[in-house]
Formats: sequence, C-alpha cells, structure tokens
Amino acid sequence: MAKKKIAVIGIGKIAQDQHLPVIDKSPDFELAACVSTRGLGHRDVPVFKTPAELYKAMPEVKLVAICTPPGVRHAYVRQALDAGKDVLLEKPPTPTITEFEDLVAYGEKKGKVLFQTWHSRYNAAVDTAKLILKDEGVASLRIDWRESVRKWHPGQEWVWEPGGFGVCDPGINAMSIFTKIMPFPVFVDSAKLKFPANRQTPVDVEIVFKSGEKHQPKLSAGFNWLEESGEIWTIAIETRKGTQLKLERGGTVLTVNGKETVANPSSEYEAIYERFAKLLKKGKSEMDGSPLRLIGDAFLLGARENVDEFHW
Amino acid sequence: MAKKKIAVIGIGKIAQDQHLPVIDKSPDFELAACVSTRGLGHRDVPVFKTPAELYKAMPEVKLVAICTPPGVRHAYVRQALDAGKDVLLEKPPTPTITEFEDLVAYGEKKGKVLFQTWHSRYNAAVDTAKLILKDEGVASLRIDWRESVRKWHPGQEWVWEPGGFGVCDPGINAMSIFTKIMPFPVFVDSAKLKFPANRQTPVDVEIVFKSGEKHQPKLSAGFNWLEESGEIWTIAIETRKGTQLKLERGGTVLTVNGKETVANPSSEYEAIYERFAKLLKKGKSEMDGSPLRLIGDAFLLGARENVDEFHW
Repeated sequence: MAKKKIAVIGIGKIAQDQHLPVIDKSPDFELAACVSTRGLGHRDVPVFKTPAELYKAMPEVKLVAICTPPGVRHAYVRQALDAGKDVLLEKPPTPTITEFEDLVAYGEKKGKVLFQTWHSRYNAAVDTAKLILKDEGVASLRIDWRESVRKWHPGQEWVWEPGGFGVCDPGINAMSIFTKIMPFPVFVDSAKLKFPANRQTPVDVEIVFKSGEKHQPKLSAGFNWLEESGEIWTIAIETRKGTQLKLERGGTVLTVNGKETVANPSSEYEAIYERFAKLLKKGKSEMDGSPLRLIGDAFLLGARENVDEFHW
Repeated sequence: MAKKKIAVIGIGKIAQDQHLPVIDKSPDFELAACVSTRGLGHRDVPVFKTPAELYKAMPEVKLVAICTPPGVRHAYVRQALDAGKDVLLEKPPTPTITEFEDLVAYGEKKGKVLFQTWHSRYNAAVDTAKLILKDEGVASLRIDWRESVRKWHPGQEWVWEPGGFGVCDPGINAMSIFTKIMPFPVFVDSAKLKFPANRQTPVDVEIVFKSGEKHQPKLSAGFNWLEESGEIWTIAIETRKGTQLKLERGGTVLTVNGKETVANPSSEYEAIYERFAKLLKKGKSEMDGSPLRLIGDAFLLGARENVDEFHW
C-alpha cells in the first residue's frame, strides 16, 4: 500500500529530534512538506512559511502533524480541519482546557481524525503495568518526576512565563502515564505549587489525589525542576495483592518486586505514528484531555507558595 | 398531574434562601425530605443526616437537589446516581474540572437526568441580549463584576482557602452569562490574578479573552471583591451594528442604547425548577461545564501578583 503523504508543521526541537526521523523510517507515512515560519526544512521536501500556503500549493497532502509551541495550536488545528486535513497533535495540546474541548467538538463536527498524542504512554512497560493494576488493584502510588530545567530547557524564558506550565510541562508526561494505567478515575484532592519569587510558573509541585474507591488508595505526585543529579522519572506502586511495581526512566522500564521485567529502548514516536495509521484506517479520533485537566485542577485548587528566585 | 417528590441535600444559605421556598410554590415539585448533617429541616418533612439514610428510608423519592458546598458534591452526585436518582446540582459544580467531567460521563452511563444549574443564566434580560448578539454580532464586550466579600461572605474563611475560588466564586456567575450569550466560542488569552499576601485565593482578577473570529472582538472581564460602594454586576457590549447593550444587576436588567428594555424581578430559581421539570420530561441531561473551564483556564494561564493582606 502506498505511504500516506504527511506534512510537519513547526520544525522545532521535537520535530527534528523525533517526528522527522521517525516519519523517514515509517512504513505508513511519507514526508511531503514542512511548514516553518523560520524556513526550516528536512531533506529536499518543499518548505512553506504558513499552513495556508501548504494547503494551497499541495492539496494532495491530507495529513498534518502539528509540532509548534502550544500557544498557536488551537488556531492551527482549526485551520487544518477547515482545510479538510486529519491531524496529529504534539503534547501538551493547548494552553487552556477550553481550547482543547473546542478542538474535540470541532473535529467531530468536521468528521476528521484528530489524534492527541501523549508520547510517554507508548511504552511496553506502561502497558504491562496497566495490565497488572487492572488485575491486582492499587493500594498506593507515588509519582516522582524530577529533572533539571537548566539541562532540559536551557535559557528558554517562556517556560517561566504565564501559560508555560513550569515544572508541570514535564509533569504532564507523568499524568499521561498515570491516567493510562489507573483502573479507576482519579481526581486532584489538594496541591501545593511553589513559585520562584521572580517567576510566573511553579518550580515544584506536590499533588495529593483522591478516588471514589472505598479502600482509599494513597496517591500522590511530586514534580521538581531543580534536580541536578540526573533525571528521576519514577512511578512506584503497591498493588492490593502486595506486589511492588516500579516504572522508571519515564515509563520505559518496569521492575516487579525489584526485578527488571520490561526494559525496552524507547520507541515512543514510532508507536505514535503506528497508532495514527490505525486511527486513520478506522476513521476514529483519539482525544484524551485527562492529563491536561489534572494539571489544570492542580492550578485551580493548589495552595501557592513563593520560594527562592530562579536564575539560570 | 401529581407533583414529583424531591429531597434537598445540604440545608445551607442557598437552600434556605432559594430552593426550599421555590419548591414550596412550585407546580411541578413537592418537598419530600431534607438531608442535613446539622439536622436542619423545612416545615414538617423528614430530615436525614445522610443521603444514604434518605435513600433507604424513602425509596419513593426519585429526585434530589444537591446544595452542599462544592467539596463533597462529586461523591454525593455519584451516590445519588448509584441510587437511581435524577439530580439537580447547585453552582459551582465541583472544585475540579476532572470531577465535573466524571459526573457527565457517569450520569450518561447510569442513564439518569443530571442538571447543572447556573442561576444567573435564567433571566429574560439575558435571553434578549443573546438574541440581539446572535443577530448583530459582537464588536466588544466588557464584564465588570465587583462586590464586597465582607458583605457577601462575612467571616467565611473557606472562600480564601485553596479551592475556594476567591473572587471567581461570584465571577463564575458572570462567566455563565458570558458563555450563554456569546454567538461564538471564547477562550482565555491571558489573565492577571491578585492574591492578598496572606490568602490562597484571588481578590481581584482581570481576564482578556480571545476568539477565532476574524474581526477580533475585544473581550475582557474584571472581578473585584473589595467594592464597598454596592454591587457592580455589569456586562457592557457593543454589537457590530453599533448597538450599545448593558446587562446590569447580575443579568436582570437590559438597557439598549441607554434605554431600559427588559427589567424583570429576579425569578432565577423558579426558572431553574421549571427547566428541571422539562429536562425530566424529556429524560435529558444538561451539563455545561464551560463557565468552570474558563475559570480553571484563568488560574492555569494567569500571572499571579501578591497584593495587600486581607483582613475582615
């Protein structure tokens, strides 16, 4: 079967690191064009300054992957749907929950496939953990998501600006795994957000979750952006049968009672494009806003505390 | 036709001021019981300490109105749905957006009628404004929602605690009118939240909205909780045809080009119970979370500023 032509919109770090090389090797897709306000491209495909120019010049391209910063995504997705395209969308989806819900409704109205990706969900270790929790239940779960903002966002001032999410930008990855593996609905019960006195987004967040479960599992998460010893991206779980699970390295490794059980090299973006191919075949959208809503709820419900100023 | 038996759960200020007297006069409903942890009742109807006791003792009561503080509502609504009841819910619905969405899904699953009320929407002036805006479009809109927290929440510490919403508790009423009358979707573009240095919820909020409309209408809102001169609950609108509309006194009065056009005494809760009767007849839920989402988005996206301490 012929590969499907796709254009990538927004040629920043995530497009260059993941989308473009993954599409190059994909059995399902073929890169047809790039859209970049800065004129960045890939190999010899045509480069357009705006999506509108792409849609006019190459109407045969029916698919787009939107990898711009979140601020413009809502307008770009609506424009793509108006042009009759199916759309794959990087995370986090949009700066606000209202925009996300609007895209869900607009995609349905237009009858096109919309796929909100959450890359951390696409690991065999995550799938295995989900199966075990479905079978054994959850007694307690603790998320620790700690990394260095200096290493991962060197000098990127926007992460500290209103709407930049702060440490919830990586933290939403943990939320995307959490909401995938839990066998029952979870809600923010309380949260504490620590803001550097000179910044507008939090550097440290603690969240306590609740559920409707009678046995009242203990569920919590801590995100921190000043961890200089290396990444700690861990979810530790005790099941109701006493099994100890640990998802490590961002969901790529699973240990069960201390024994490494699944450890695959990350191929999250390969899996994302496989999933997109399946959704297109079925003509079905996949728009799960639950990770974004949990982050929004932490901001809505959280206690704020000012802490030491942050300087690069 | 016989009146439908309804129980009111949570006998606080809003139940006593509105729900109970309105039900007493309703042609559609008949008060069958009260549920109050403090043992408060109304006339001679039975009083139960918990919803579970009501459901056990009076299975013939198929309807409940939940008027508790928001913190327990999610659990109470789920319990009511589990007991096979149709549910009317006071505003604001739940402390988090995730809980609200869960209730929407759970109500659908259980096949019961769920009605999220937004009392400020039920005014003839609001309906008339909506019709005019549908016809003439919106060039600009400004919301001013100013009142005294000392007058409206005297000594109520919870309004300042995390999850208490602060000035967004009255502000969400404005959002419920705004989202009803606008002829196109609106989104939070930016926000500024001012927190008293000794409190956890904002005392003053400014929001700038955006839309996808090409003519870029100017849309903004200001909420303030230190207005001691009396209530200012106003939405001023200029249509694209140049008509000046003003919704005043919380949506009960409409002036058009300076002339008072609609001015009905508020009968918001009468209208809410009429609407509930209609929804029950059709077996249809009405769960619009858009006012809550706009408030959540303002917290998620907003710049924070510490201002003078608040003391009663």
